[in-house]
Amino acid sequence: MAIVEVAIIPIGTGSTSVSQYVADCHKVLEYEKNIKLALTPMGSVLEGDLDLILAAVRKMHEVPFDNGAMRVSTTIRIDDRRDKSASIEQKLKSVQEKMDQP
Amino acid sequence: MAIVEVAIIPIGTGSTSVSQYVADCHKVLEYEKNIKLALTPMGSVLEGDLDLILAAVRKMHEVPFDNGAMRVSTTIRIDDRRDKSASIEQKLKSVQEKMDQP
Amino acid sequence: MAIVEVAIIPIGTGSTSVSQYVADCHKVLEYEKNIKLALTPMGSVLEGDLDLILAAVRKMHEVPFDNGAMRVSTTIRIDDRRDKSASIEQKLKSVQEKMDQP
Amino acid sequence: MAIVEVAIIPIGTGSTSVSQYVADCHKVLEYEKNIKLALTPMGSVLEGDLDLILAAVRKMHEVPFDNGAMRVSTTIRIDDRRDKSASIEQKLKSVQEKMDQP
Repeated sequence: MAIVEVAIIPIGTGSTSVSQYVADCHKVLEYEKNIKLALTPMGSVLEGDLDLILAAVRKMHEVPFDNGAMRVSTTIRIDDRRDKSASIEQKLKSVQEKMDQP
Repeated sequence: MAIVEVAIIPIGTGSTSVSQYVADCHKVLEYEKNIKLALTPMGSVLEGDLDLILAAVRKMHEVPFDNGAMRVSTTIRIDDRRDKSASIEQKLKSVQEKMDQP
Repeated sequence: MAIVEVAIIPIGTGSTSVSQYVADCHKVLEYEKNIKLALTPMGSVLEGDLDLILAAVRKMHEVPFDNGAMRVSTTIRIDDRRDKSASIEQKLKSVQEKMDQP
Repeated sequence: MAIVEVAIIPIGTGSTSVSQYVADCHKVLEYEKNIKLALTPMGSVLEGDLDLILAAVRKMHEVPFDNGAMRVSTTIRIDDRRDKSASIEQKLKSVQEKMDQP
C-alpha cells in the first residue's frame, strides 16, 4: 500500500481556472474501488496498491488532453513504506497526536 | 494571498518515521497568526501572504536540523493567483461542486 | 514523446549519502534503448514514450527497496506537450536562445 | 550551501510555450554573483547560500506576473546537506562515478 499525491496542471488553455479539469480527473477514480481518495487544496492524495494507483494516474493525466489542452504538467509524489502498513488516516493521526503533545 | 504546500523530509536519520519532525515543523506555525494551515497526508498546506509563508517555510526547513538531521529535502509548491482571491476553502469547494455535477 | 523528471529518495537508511541508490536506479535504464537520459544535480530527466518511461520509473522506484531501504519517497514531474514535438535538447535550446537575446 | 531546483509555470496565458518566461526568470540571476546556475530541461538548479537562493527564487516567481500572467505555479525542491560540502559538480560526479563501476 502506497500513498501518492497527484497535481495535474493544463498549460496554455487561456484560463486561470483549473477546477473543471481537476474534477474531470477525479471522475476517473469513481470506478477505482480499491483506491481511496483524499482531495487537498493542492492536489489529490490516493491510497492503495502502487501499480493500481499509477495506472489510474496515467488515465487522469490524459483527461485534460481529452478536454482540449495541448500541454499538461503532472506532478506525482509517492510515499511508499514497507516496514509497516501506512494509510492516509494513520499518517494524519500520527502527526496530529504529536502536535497535540505539549 | 497564495496557497503553498510544503513537504519536509529528513534524510539519513536511521528511522523511517518522520511524523515527529513534521509535528515539530508545524509548531513553528503556532505563532504565525496570519497563516492558515491545512494538514494533508503528504505535507502541509499554508494560506496567506506569500512573503510571510516563505519566511515560515524557511524556519520549518530548519527544524529537522535542530533535531539532529544532517540532510533535509524540502519540496515547496506555490499556487499564486492574482485575478481573484483564492483560499484553501474556495479551492476545495470549487472542485467538489464540479465533481458533484452529473 | 514526454519529458519526465524523477527524484528517488530512500528514507531511514541511516546514511546521508544517496548517490549509490541513484546510480543503481540508473542501471535500470541501461536496457531501455528508447528512453534518453539526462542526469541533473537534482534527479534524472527521461525523454521518450510516456508509457515506456512510467514503466521504467516504476522499476527505478523499486531499486532502493532491493538494496535494503524500507521507505522510499519518489517525485515525478511529467511535461507532456502534444502541439509540437518536444525534446530535452530542444527545450534547453529554446530557453538558451531567449536568454542570449539582449 | 544548498542546492535548489526551481520550476516556474504560468497558468492561463493562452500559449503552450513557456520558454520566454523561463528565460526572463533567469535574467534575475544575472546579478546574483554568488548563486551558481545550471539549466536543466525541467527547470533551473541553483547552488549557494540558501537564504540568497530563496530571495532570488522569490524574485523569479514574480517575473511571469510582470509579463502579464495572472496565475503562477512554482515548484521548489531544496537539497540541504550539512555534514559535508555539497555542490552541483560534486553531486553529478558522485553519481557518475558509481554508474561507471561495473
